[in-house]
Amino acid sequence: MLAGGVGAARFLRGLLGVIDPRSVTAIVNTADDIELYGLHVSPDLDTVTYTLAGAVDGARGWGLVDETWSAMGMLQRYGDDAWFNLGDQDLGTHLYRTKRLAQGATLSEVTAEIVAGWDLELEVLPMTDHLVQTRVVVDGSEIGFQDYFVKHQHNVAVSDIRFDGIESASAAPGVLERIGEADVIVIAPSNPLVSIGPILAVPAIRSAVEKRRRDVVAISPIVGGAALKGPADRMMTELDHDSSAAGVATLYTSLGSALVVDRVDARHAAAIRAIGMEPVITDTVMDTIEIAEALALSTLHAVDRRTTP
Amino acid sequence: MLAGGVGAARFLRGLLGVIDPRSVTAIVNTADDIELYGLHVSPDLDTVTYTLAGAVDGARGWGLVDETWSAMGMLQRYGDDAWFNLGDQDLGTHLYRTKRLAQGATLSEVTAEIVAGWDLELEVLPMTDHLVQTRVVVDGSEIGFQDYFVKHQHNVAVSDIRFDGIESASAAPGVLERIGEADVIVIAPSNPLVSIGPILAVPAIRSAVEKRRRDVVAISPIVGGAALKGPADRMMTELDHDSSAAGVATLYTSLGSALVVDRVDARHAAAIRAIGMEPVITDTVMDTIEIAEALALSTLHAVDRRTTP
Repeated sequence: MLAGGVGAARFLRGLLGVIDPRSVTAIVNTADDIELYGLHVSPDLDTVTYTLAGAVDGARGWGLVDETWSAMGMLQRYGDDAWFNLGDQDLGTHLYRTKRLAQGATLSEVTAEIVAGWDLELEVLPMTDHLVQTRVVVDGSEIGFQDYFVKHQHNVAVSDIRFDGIESASAAPGVLERIGEADVIVIAPSNPLVSIGPILAVPAIRSAVEKRRRDVVAISPIVGGAALKGPADRMMTELDHDSSAAGVATLYTSLGSALVVDRVDARHAAAIRAIGMEPVITDTVMDTIEIAEALALSTLHAVDRRTTP
Repeated sequence: MLAGGVGAARFLRGLLGVIDPRSVTAIVNTADDIELYGLHVSPDLDTVTYTLAGAVDGARGWGLVDETWSAMGMLQRYGDDAWFNLGDQDLGTHLYRTKRLAQGATLSEVTAEIVAGWDLELEVLPMTDHLVQTRVVVDGSEIGFQDYFVKHQHNVAVSDIRFDGIESASAAPGVLERIGEADVIVIAPSNPLVSIGPILAVPAIRSAVEKRRRDVVAISPIVGGAALKGPADRMMTELDHDSSAAGVATLYTSLGSALVVDRVDARHAAAIRAIGMEPVITDTVMDTIEIAEALALSTLHAVDRRTTP
């Protein structure tokens, strides 16, 4: 599975309920990573890990349950703007990652250690062990992704996206092998442009996925023309994509053969098929674990019952 | 005042009760500083700041009152040995310092900002803005100071001490000026070898203090032959110094003209005078703020009533 943050994590939670976790590999976007206060923060990796551990805060959808914010309070005492919320427990993860990276461990190695610390059985791989950073252009100025996403609360129009460092980034160990050998490759219901986009922008990953097109199924993160969470819909419109399930099909048709869309988007079925993907229509809004599990099953079956290769 | 951690902080608390805080400068040891998890930790600076802010944990003598340890708990989840306790509030200070240093601020500047964040009116200066690190030899191996002090709980014999980086360290801005212009220069009741020692090992600081010898008064951290806190007594013995008030006089006689010692050490008065310092005998165990304030007054008056220059 190619995975971003919250949407991917919720889907994975359903998936792990219906198949052996040891058969699952999540390849996670790391272009949202940011260095804050000297610490290496990997938001998508941590959202996936915390969610699958059942430790994520349900109301916020990110961060840890029963979190405290003492360190942030102290930063405010010193006049720091503290625009990126780092909970006290969460800080422990960043401290650990930063220390291990400084010791020479790769992000892949540290990620495996963190996942093991939560007793998770799936494999979680960063897309790359190299530093890649999403940069977006807003109001004519290029800013970092978290600056856009958190500080500006994604309330500004994006006119361009760039993945800094992507040219020299290689896929993390195991990524190309897992893509090559998987029975099914799932593209999570994450933002196609800034969550899935960076993964596919790593040289060799896109072509590895394209080679497996028959076995690739994507889940549309756009439901009824809108993103369930985050700015995917506006961002697609701003960058001249169609903010609809059909627009998602246009982005993914060279990569996958099936697209899972919500029942509210049934009217797009013909358009999606015309674009070259087989539509699978089901409930995609994962309000309960049961819906997530049913969605996972529908998704896995999608590549078996497709009618167009 | 030349200051280490806990003993210096307690003395300063008394001092600020009897004179205008704006007339006080604390020049603080930074050779205990350590990089942990990518963060710059300055234990003595923080102990002084937290104590004077009334925010230090009274029972421990270090760290913050009402502290929580969520980040440490998370590190343990990942198998980190977490031998150095960093509280959640305390982490906020280290995050701030690390960020500002990475932005190019000097340790002096960051320290002033942190002190201002606690609304303290005294001036707190690090001894140097350069990186100096105390290294101690135990069992024939050289280890970092915090490794010795915290990880080994100073339960191993020290055969040598070295201040890494001291040759190229210059006094922080204002340090030499304050020493030159002060009415009274106080050497705090801190470990002479590893708290006061590094400050005096910065080139130019020792000679600046020696030039003011008539106006320099030290407080013995050794009471009845023992350190009130920490390993100063054992360390002095291990390094062939006399672990007594007279032994402290031997270390400080070239620097100061008066030595404040506890009443239990009255019998050392003649020896201290013979070594070349005027003994001042009073209560030095600062169990209450009243004792600390009385000690501060006795110390300030010591350089006025000395009988030998």
